[in-house]
Amino acid sequence: MAARPKLHYPNGRGRMESVRWVLAAAGVEFDEEFLETKEQLHKLQDGNHLLFQQVPMVEIDGMKLVQTRSILHYIADKHNLFGKDLKERTLIDMYVEGTLDLLELLIMHPFLKPDDQQKEVVNMAQKAIIRYFPVFEKILRGHGQNFLVGNQLSLADVILLQTILALEEKIPNILSAFPFLQEYTVKLSNIPTIKRFLEPGSKKKPPPDEIYVRTVYNIFKP
Amino acid sequence: MAARPKLHYPNGRGRMESVRWVLAAAGVEFDEEFLETKEQLHKLQDGNHLLFQQVPMVEIDGMKLVQTRSILHYIADKHNLFGKDLKERTLIDMYVEGTLDLLELLIMHPFLKPDDQQKEVVNMAQKAIIRYFPVFEKILRGHGQNFLVGNQLSLADVILLQTILALEEKIPNILSAFPFLQEYTVKLSNIPTIKRFLEPGSKKKPPPDEIYVRTVYNIFKP
Repeated sequence: MAARPKLHYPNGRGRMESVRWVLAAAGVEFDEEFLETKEQLHKLQDGNHLLFQQVPMVEIDGMKLVQTRSILHYIADKHNLFGKDLKERTLIDMYVEGTLDLLELLIMHPFLKPDDQQKEVVNMAQKAIIRYFPVFEKILRGHGQNFLVGNQLSLADVILLQTILALEEKIPNILSAFPFLQEYTVKLSNIPTIKRFLEPGSKKKPPPDEIYVRTVYNIFKP
Repeated sequence: MAARPKLHYPNGRGRMESVRWVLAAAGVEFDEEFLETKEQLHKLQDGNHLLFQQVPMVEIDGMKLVQTRSILHYIADKHNLFGKDLKERTLIDMYVEGTLDLLELLIMHPFLKPDDQQKEVVNMAQKAIIRYFPVFEKILRGHGQNFLVGNQLSLADVILLQTILALEEKIPNILSAFPFLQEYTVKLSNIPTIKRFLEPGSKKKPPPDEIYVRTVYNIFKP
């Protein structure tokens, strides 16, 4: 049996949370080595464990994968979350890329100056409501299925669900104008592997707090 | 015979230049519809031609592809530039993602304030020389082949060559400490499809100038 994947990242969401989500959705158990100090990062860098000297890094199947998207793509390929042909794959890829653009705003949010944080919540809400959610609402309304592509769970669903739930923490009524996305969110959240990930005690990380922000600064600031 | 791909973007490099590079390397002829005004962008948006209301957009094989990476992935998949198995694919993906992080600095550079542009050239040079080029130099030195992965041209080579040549325009001696990358650059540049793309009269775009920057502002500023 292959070793469990091991994730190297601080103990918080950041760019690794999508990886945790996709592994969990695929039903893959994993271990985590939390970066807590600059010395730990240097040790990984000096040991040539980080291709471009950065985390996230995931040890999996004898490889040390880096770059968030590459890690997500590998896991999705391996666990049949990337469609049944090139056309489905390309739709999934586009939906993931759009959603990651939105998620990126959430990832950077805790590192903004306090004055900018509230403004950025408004910006995120607008982007979500005007640019991204209408696309996904229309897809779901159009085909009447439970998933975005090919009537089965894909990377696109996992990343969109992650992003919706994280946005709802900040803006509880963000889906109020999107009934199909509301239903979709409930249904996806009840998939057994995802349901377990959403329950207390899972490896899902809480919203970023001051301790997380300080830890990240301590590790990564030059 | 399938229609030629049609690229929708301003008449400049930006995020579309990688797409032009990959199509050219694959020997695919393409057409371009240059965005020159905000009205043209609105027309594309209002006609539902842009999934997330943004360019780059590429009409290809009956689809309207958006999101730079998704477009690159589709073309690479179609033209056998993404490795022979999942392991090669994942290496290519990681190399592309690292290189795109570096290329992003070049794409944003013309839009910085004049005072920041010179500082950013120093930053780019450092990132290239310390973080990215040593990785690729070591790979080429290690296996002695002409390409990064699987001994044949891949998306990783195309994006790296694009990035090296664009950096050399700003920092002519950027490869001075990297003899294997120097040789690699020469060899890749002599591949017939790429050689044609590097010759005058091709669809390769010149370095961004003031007209390009002003055009982009006029089209995309709210």
